[in-house]
Amino acid sequence: MSYAIPRGTQDILPGQSEKWQRIEALIHDLCRRYNYKEIRTPMFEQTELFARGVGDTTDIVQKEMYTFKDRGDRSLTLRPEGTASVVRSFVENKMHGLPDQPVKLYYTGPMFRYERPQSGRMRQFVQFGVEALGSADPQIDGEVLALAMDFYKEIGLQNVKLVINSLGDKDSRTAHKEALISHFKPRINEFCSDCQSRLEKNPLRILDCKKDRDHELMGTAPSILDYLNDASKEYFEHVQKALESMGIAYVIDPTLVRGLDYYNNTAFEIMLEGDGFGAITTLAGGGRYNGLVEEIGGPETPGIGFALSIERVLMALEAQQVELQTVNQLDVYLVSLGDEPKDKTPEIIHSLRAQGISCDTDYMDKKMKAQMKAANRQQAKYVFILGEDELDQQSVMVKEMATGEQTLVPLATIMSDAASIVTT
Amino acid sequence: MSYAIPRGTQDILPGQSEKWQRIEALIHDLCRRYNYKEIRTPMFEQTELFARGVGDTTDIVQKEMYTFKDRGDRSLTLRPEGTASVVRSFVENKMHGLPDQPVKLYYTGPMFRYERPQSGRMRQFVQFGVEALGSADPQIDGEVLALAMDFYKEIGLQNVKLVINSLGDKDSRTAHKEALISHFKPRINEFCSDCQSRLEKNPLRILDCKKDRDHELMGTAPSILDYLNDASKEYFEHVQKALESMGIAYVIDPTLVRGLDYYNNTAFEIMLEGDGFGAITTLAGGGRYNGLVEEIGGPETPGIGFALSIERVLMALEAQQVELQTVNQLDVYLVSLGDEPKDKTPEIIHSLRAQGISCDTDYMDKKMKAQMKAANRQQAKYVFILGEDELDQQSVMVKEMATGEQTLVPLATIMSDAASIVTT
Repeated sequence: MSYAIPRGTQDILPGQSEKWQRIEALIHDLCRRYNYKEIRTPMFEQTELFARGVGDTTDIVQKEMYTFKDRGDRSLTLRPEGTASVVRSFVENKMHGLPDQPVKLYYTGPMFRYERPQSGRMRQFVQFGVEALGSADPQIDGEVLALAMDFYKEIGLQNVKLVINSLGDKDSRTAHKEALISHFKPRINEFCSDCQSRLEKNPLRILDCKKDRDHELMGTAPSILDYLNDASKEYFEHVQKALESMGIAYVIDPTLVRGLDYYNNTAFEIMLEGDGFGAITTLAGGGRYNGLVEEIGGPETPGIGFALSIERVLMALEAQQVELQTVNQLDVYLVSLGDEPKDKTPEIIHSLRAQGISCDTDYMDKKMKAQMKAANRQQAKYVFILGEDELDQQSVMVKEMATGEQTLVPLATIMSDAASIVTT
Repeated sequence: MSYAIPRGTQDILPGQSEKWQRIEALIHDLCRRYNYKEIRTPMFEQTELFARGVGDTTDIVQKEMYTFKDRGDRSLTLRPEGTASVVRSFVENKMHGLPDQPVKLYYTGPMFRYERPQSGRMRQFVQFGVEALGSADPQIDGEVLALAMDFYKEIGLQNVKLVINSLGDKDSRTAHKEALISHFKPRINEFCSDCQSRLEKNPLRILDCKKDRDHELMGTAPSILDYLNDASKEYFEHVQKALESMGIAYVIDPTLVRGLDYYNNTAFEIMLEGDGFGAITTLAGGGRYNGLVEEIGGPETPGIGFALSIERVLMALEAQQVELQTVNQLDVYLVSLGDEPKDKTPEIIHSLRAQGISCDTDYMDKKMKAQMKAANRQQAKYVFILGEDELDQQSVMVKEMATGEQTLVPLATIMSDAASIVTT
């Protein structure tokens, strides 16, 4: 009997995993420069946290969660996104009391949604996200947006477009909500049942509906930008000013919304422009959520963040034929011939590895020619040959593969100062 | 309403997460030198894989798994360990057909076991493990053991002891099994019910029993080492020879067993000696499992591996007061005074970050003194001060915190060649 990987998940195999490592190294370095610190939360949480933190009217909570009872009969859910967990940890660990505010956090790791698997949509997928909690300064919105855009820039992706909008503050949103209800109510029976139930509760989400997106009332719906009060307008202008001063291009799209009540002011998405990338062109999404910390039991605290999918970055890089820089070459392959030389190999490779050099040798009892082939497949920079003759002379024949040059080098040199021979 | 983290799990917060990053960087570098490649498998698998691959008589499978049905009514289980998943991937991806054998893989990530939480035992914990599949050369056993020991050495842990044993090949194990049955059978009624049911099926696991470990028959039980046939003896000697040639100390413990049928030859544990570390002193465990790939549906393939817990490494480091090298210092804190200078900050910090420099600024509308305090808390190496005067001169006052020295530096220099000012 053999076993298949669960549907909608993937193995990341050698050849691919080096790319993931490269991206993670970039994330750690980028966040170091921006002074965001890593947080790691568990893979699962109490189910109720997501119902509250993600919103119990969302598709995620209603249809897509991996929910189960543990052996103590607690309802747990594999995290479908990162923000709710980070905010739970922020509240539980009383980070609002830390001297350094805002608290600037980032995370990277698997998330889980039971969706129909398709290109760019996995049931287990990896997100990188940041959250800045505790500041309502529009410049921090600018910083968060800049970090996301710098990520794509430094990874080498082209044609990345930043789309922003403002949802306004509470008052602006209330005014806009009323206008939306007036707009849709007379003809709401022409909309899907989801939209009908959203009308009074959360009409903003009607604008997000995939079924009704071509209805003529969609294009004429009142724009939030016409309902922003002065404070909200000024806030939005400051965010734009910060972006401009950093030289970050953006477009404003008044139909860009985030459906939950505790989102406000800045909302944004990062899209990939151009062909060859399939139907999904959203790379990242985020926004300001000044009500979320309170919703999850903490004090009133402003916050802003984004999340992006690593799988989609990799797809986009592939579509644009961008190669990530990864190390695949072996420094040294040790070829041994005969029993005594073979017995000597552990000592030599162990010493080389301790000196920082990557190396390998034969564990399949191969003949010399097959060992040389293995060295070539591994793109070894150097082959060390140890036969009876070399061992008698307490030496190793060092072959530099790029030049074909061979030199007999004393074992003592290899074991104590391999860097004088091997350029890594 | 506020939410608590699920029992037996933890948040890894700033201050700790840097240590995890440091350990992971070491793992990646160590495995690069040893030429092991990273594999990442999903957090969950078909439940049946673990019943088969871990063993359905084990405590893990019988009592400790997080098993649930997904929305398609499939039984899934959060992975309780890494080997079964890696072997599943090896078989599914036909890695036995790759030209480079053995296939040398490593992984690091969360595992899940529903156990009573205690110091050193979490319900979600992180393991680092390696698997070498495809070679039955005793030198690869030596390599795997050396890699594990090098990990602890390079991380700076002291008093780490390697304990090894041989379980022999199939014939040796059969002979030993018969001897064990003869030894325990006459007095098996004095043993616990678990042991009684293990007697005929898997008497080796009686030696592992925690309840009966003080029974007098335990100390006098026949040793596997007396039942090794010549091939098994020779294999074990070669493993020891490899360890000795690498200068790796070890002790042999004939009572060290791994209970499942497909384990054979080399078995090992790495223990922490000395006080101050509580009851749990096992850091890592592993061994050879020549039957496992076949068990999981692949061709007959030898294999060896180990797994170790990162949480326990961190506990051990703390007990030994070893500090991991991490970067906590900020390069630059930008203090701004007044509206115009404040408006200028995004441009400056964005440029510094693009130049590889870590920096931060104030997002809480703080006065100068409070901003200086924040810079001190962040251990900033430099404070850049931008007031109206400096801005008028298109300059920044640069203060080097170690010396207190202040210099007025043109903004143009900061924006184009900050490295000439800031030593990171």
